[in-house]
Amino acid sequence: MKLQRHPANPLLLPDPTSDWETYNVFNPSVIHHNGLFHMHYRAQGMDWLSRIGYALSADGVHWNRLRRPVLEPLDVSDARGIEDPRVTEIEGRFYMCYTAFSREVPSDVKVTHMGGGVTPMIAVSDNLISWERLGSIVRGEDNKDHVLFPRRINGRYVALHRRPPQVWLAESDDLIHWPEEHMRPIFGPRPDNGWDEKRVGGNGVPIETEHGWLMLYHAYNDDHVYRLGVCLLDLDDPANVIRRAKDFIFEPQELWELRGDVPNVVFSCANPVVDGTVYVYYGGADHVIGLATCKLDELLDFARHG
Amino acid sequence: MKLQRHPANPLLLPDPTSDWETYNVFNPSVIHHNGLFHMHYRAQGMDWLSRIGYALSADGVHWNRLRRPVLEPLDVSDARGIEDPRVTEIEGRFYMCYTAFSREVPSDVKVTHMGGGVTPMIAVSDNLISWERLGSIVRGEDNKDHVLFPRRINGRYVALHRRPPQVWLAESDDLIHWPEEHMRPIFGPRPDNGWDEKRVGGNGVPIETEHGWLMLYHAYNDDHVYRLGVCLLDLDDPANVIRRAKDFIFEPQELWELRGDVPNVVFSCANPVVDGTVYVYYGGADHVIGLATCKLDELLDFARHG
Repeated sequence: MKLQRHPANPLLLPDPTSDWETYNVFNPSVIHHNGLFHMHYRAQGMDWLSRIGYALSADGVHWNRLRRPVLEPLDVSDARGIEDPRVTEIEGRFYMCYTAFSREVPSDVKVTHMGGGVTPMIAVSDNLISWERLGSIVRGEDNKDHVLFPRRINGRYVALHRRPPQVWLAESDDLIHWPEEHMRPIFGPRPDNGWDEKRVGGNGVPIETEHGWLMLYHAYNDDHVYRLGVCLLDLDDPANVIRRAKDFIFEPQELWELRGDVPNVVFSCANPVVDGTVYVYYGGADHVIGLATCKLDELLDFARHG
Repeated sequence: MKLQRHPANPLLLPDPTSDWETYNVFNPSVIHHNGLFHMHYRAQGMDWLSRIGYALSADGVHWNRLRRPVLEPLDVSDARGIEDPRVTEIEGRFYMCYTAFSREVPSDVKVTHMGGGVTPMIAVSDNLISWERLGSIVRGEDNKDHVLFPRRINGRYVALHRRPPQVWLAESDDLIHWPEEHMRPIFGPRPDNGWDEKRVGGNGVPIETEHGWLMLYHAYNDDHVYRLGVCLLDLDDPANVIRRAKDFIFEPQELWELRGDVPNVVFSCANPVVDGTVYVYYGGADHVIGLATCKLDELLDFARHG
């Protein structure tokens, strides 16, 4: 079972006449809301900082983008860029998980784990355009690939995040405080499985199904080729992996996936489901944006039995 | 009492690098919804057809526009352009009044009054981006400057429209059928009043106040100078003019209002009220978009006593 590329690919290109999306557009979030597909995408401009752009589409294929970004670096905490958005709608509000890339580690932060300059942030909006920063899931460690589940589980907000090389689960009562005692690893690379032997991280918002949370993830191997896989998490306790498909569902093949700003990358932050189809939006080689799709029931079947 | 120009004027300019908003952007609709100002504006491109563009703003002054139009000519009925949008929110849905400029009069239309190529259309949307055409208030006559009231009055939808040289009122049970027997003239030019001696037409959505519907309108005189005025309509029967201020509240003064595609024009399709301030957006000389403001209570006072 493999995702099918849309024939209109790539859907979105950088714009050499722009100052802020000059070189690369990639790693988009996409949600379907109020009859439209809403995309938030990462863009790199003349200064090579990442900003978040916004585009709209009626069919998910043809996009109309705003001329200016909707989220930009604000201070030292994200001075090197705002990256890899993942928007989740929860109880009528919109939450964007994004990675803040800091120029330096703030002096009040205790550096632990592996760094301190890559912070998993959450922002909130009621209109998808103006965003208010809420805070971060952790600070003082290099942590990213975080995404919120679309509803509370057992009364708590839940997020995936990534402590290299593993995917972790975090829980919160208020989306502000994410206590360390609630954090648990979910799964990591499979050293003997080739394509996901080295590192793994979550993709878009997990998809609720009768058999569990369908979770798409990315992984790379020793050759640094990024591929996409799928697993199934327990509905009541998503730290519990019910099933994990052995084979990948998508890998770089097109020239614009094999070559670009970073070669051999398909990287997805979005898998909205519309009318039974899973729309997997992804960055190709950190340079352009593509779309691959599959039927939800086929993906679920593959996650359970593949 | 006069409207005050915003110092950032003009707020929006044509884009010579664009194919569809090359020459002129003007006569915008603006509504305040969900914490943002939403603008729909008329734009003329390389082919000199009018299309509707869309822009967003958090403060009403700095705008972020979509690269492509959201409404374009579809068939012979609007082949020469879609003009002068006026968006009204009614009971949670959005309705755009716009003028369809036809290449020829459809063969099934009986031509009456003064033409047949200028039709007052209504479209509906739930997201302000994708619009469905509902129909027209009248056909077979040159009629424009129509705008919907923001709520039903005595159970019926109500619209202003313009049968030259007067402003008329129309009523409908379903926004589709606008029976001729419900149509009544409201007011016309004042031949002995200089600035509004020749022709009048409605501006943006009428503003409900405790003293009546505050209605801004445009007028021109024998010199073809467009100015803005204000009157007060009865809350229960808007065909009844309670009061009409003698003097105008705005006239062309800046160079970009005096010169452009059509000289000596300030023309408004929008007067949203936000935090007690009336935001009057207008086209300057059919070429650029400007903003002038006033306090609602001062405008109401002027309408009642000026």
